[in-house]
Amino acid sequence: MGDHVRVFAPASASNLGPGFDVLGLALTEPGDVVEAESREAPGVEIVEVTGDGGALPTDAARNVAGLAAADVLRRLDGLDAGPPLRRGVKLWLQKRMPLASGLGSSGASAVAGAVAVNELFGAPIARRELVASALVGEAAASGTPHADNVAPSLLGGIVLVRSYDPLELIDLPVPAALRVALVHPHCEVSTAAARRLTAERSYALDDAVANLGNIAALVDALHRGDLVQFGRSIQDRLVEPVRAHLIPGLADVKAAARSAGAFGCSISGSGPSVFAFAGSDADAASVGDAIRKAFRDSAGLESDVYVGPVNTEGAVRLD
Amino acid sequence: MGDHVRVFAPASASNLGPGFDVLGLALTEPGDVVEAESREAPGVEIVEVTGDGGALPTDAARNVAGLAAADVLRRLDGLDAGPPLRRGVKLWLQKRMPLASGLGSSGASAVAGAVAVNELFGAPIARRELVASALVGEAAASGTPHADNVAPSLLGGIVLVRSYDPLELIDLPVPAALRVALVHPHCEVSTAAARRLTAERSYALDDAVANLGNIAALVDALHRGDLVQFGRSIQDRLVEPVRAHLIPGLADVKAAARSAGAFGCSISGSGPSVFAFAGSDADAASVGDAIRKAFRDSAGLESDVYVGPVNTEGAVRLD
Repeated sequence: MGDHVRVFAPASASNLGPGFDVLGLALTEPGDVVEAESREAPGVEIVEVTGDGGALPTDAARNVAGLAAADVLRRLDGLDAGPPLRRGVKLWLQKRMPLASGLGSSGASAVAGAVAVNELFGAPIARRELVASALVGEAAASGTPHADNVAPSLLGGIVLVRSYDPLELIDLPVPAALRVALVHPHCEVSTAAARRLTAERSYALDDAVANLGNIAALVDALHRGDLVQFGRSIQDRLVEPVRAHLIPGLADVKAAARSAGAFGCSISGSGPSVFAFAGSDADAASVGDAIRKAFRDSAGLESDVYVGPVNTEGAVRLD
Repeated sequence: MGDHVRVFAPASASNLGPGFDVLGLALTEPGDVVEAESREAPGVEIVEVTGDGGALPTDAARNVAGLAAADVLRRLDGLDAGPPLRRGVKLWLQKRMPLASGLGSSGASAVAGAVAVNELFGAPIARRELVASALVGEAAASGTPHADNVAPSLLGGIVLVRSYDPLELIDLPVPAALRVALVHPHCEVSTAAARRLTAERSYALDDAVANLGNIAALVDALHRGDLVQFGRSIQDRLVEPVRAHLIPGLADVKAAARSAGAFGCSISGSGPSVFAFAGSDADAASVGDAIRKAFRDSAGLESDVYVGPVNTEGAVRLD
C-alpha cells in the first residue's frame, strides 16, 4: 500500500471502422492523470479537476473517475453496490485531453481513477478485472456502458469486445509497423446525442453484412500483418453514414487521408476526431497533416494532431 | 484440351454463425459431379440430370450448372454477356445431394459446371476467377448472388467474403483438429423464401453489434486455433432468430449439440441442415448422433449425418 499514487491512462480510438462498440485501440497520447491518496473518512473525495476538464463535476458521484474509484473501493472490501464504503480516498484529476472529442476522454478518466485506487491499496484486483469498475464510470458519462474505450485505455493494444454479457475482451495482434494518426478538430460532438442518433434507427441487413465482412477481414489482416487489407477493411456502412453530418468536412477529410496514402480513415468514437492508419511514422505524419489541412480548408476548423504507434501498455503508474 | 472431364464439387455450409452471407466452409461430402464433353454446335446442352436432382430443369438456360458453364464458355472467348457463344459443351449433372437442404446444393452444381468446362478447354481461367462464373449460376437459383457457398465449394477451406463489389475472397486458417458435423433433416426450406424473410425486415443496432463481436472473435480464434473461443463465437442474433421457426425442433437440436460437447451449432445456409463443430472425429460423431436424435424426438424427422474435417481442396477433377 502506498500513501500516494499517480496513474496515466491513455486516450483511445473506438468504433474502429466496421467495429462499432466492439473494437478500440489505445493511443500513446494524449491521456488523463489521476493522483490518489487514502484518507480516514470513507468514500471518494475529488479534491480538484484541472486541465481541460474545467466543466467536469467534482462531486464524486457525478464524476466518471469518482464513480470508478468508488466501485474499486467497494470491491476491495467485497461490498455490494452502493454506500456505505469502508475505505476513503482523495483524488486529483488532471484532464489532459478535451471532452466530447471522440478520444475516449471519459473512459481514460474512469480507467485512471480505477487503477489509481487499486494501486493505492496494493493492486489486489487484477488489471483485466478493473474494466468492470471503469465501466461503471463510463456508463454514467455516455448513458450506456460501452467498453471499447475503457478496455484499450486500461489494457493497451487493440481490444475486441466479443460480448458484453458476460463481458469478454480479446487482445488482437498489433502489427509492428502500424501507426495511427488521430486528428481532433476543434468542435464538439455529444456522445449521448450521437448514440441517440444511431440507437433510434433500424438498419438494413445488407449494411450489417458489409460490416461483418469488413470486421472479419480486419481481424484476419491484423493476424497476418497485412496493413493494406487492414486499411481496406476500415469501412463502416452502419454508423458512419448516420453520424457523418455531425462532423464538418468529413467527406473531404477522408478523401484527403486517402490521397495522402492512409490505410483507412473513419470517425473515432462518436467524433469529431477521426483516425487514420499508416505504415510508418513519416507516412502517419503526412496523413495527419493532410487531415488537419482538410478540416481547415473545408470546415474552417483548427485541429490537434497525434501521431504514433498503438500504445501497447495501456494505463501505467507514474509514481 | 481433354475430350471428356469429370469434376466433383463439394457441399458447403454457409452463413456460419454470425457470418451471414460472408462466411462459408467446404465439406468433404456430399457433393455434385459434372461430366463435360465438347460438341460441335455452340452453346451448352444438358444431356441428363441424375441422382437427387430429378426436379431440376435440363434447359441449360434455367440450370445453375448450365448457366455457370455458359459463362465460362463466354469468358474463354472474351465475349460479352449473352449468346451467341462460339464453343459448345454437353454436360451430365449427377446430383449427389438433396435440393433446398442448406448444403449449398446449387452452389456445388454451379461450381462443378464451371470447373468442368474450364478443365475441358485446358483450364485457361485461374481457379479463383471461376467464382464469378459459378455465381452467375448461383444467382439464378437463389435470386441473389451470394458467394459464401460457391467460394468454399470451389476453393475449399473456410472462406470469408469481405466484399461483394468488388468481390474479395479471403482464405481463413483451418485449425487441424476442427471437425464438422452436418445434419440434414428430411424437410425442405426454400432459399428464396428464407431470404425474403430476412431481407424484408430491419434490424436493431445491438443485434448487429453482437454479430460484429462474434465474427471478429471467430476469425481471431481460427488464427489462434482456439476451438473453444471459435465455438463460443458461433452466435447469430441477426438471421437465426428470424429463420428459426422454419426448422422444426431447432431449439432442441441446439441444446442437444451443446450437451454433446459441440463447439457451436447453427443453421447451415438457409436450412434445414444444421452444422456443429467438434475437436475430434469421435466428438463430431457424437454431436452428429445427438443432433439426429433431437430432430427425430422433437420433430419426428429422419436425418442424414455427415461428419469430417473441413475440405481444404474444394472442387477436384476426377478424370
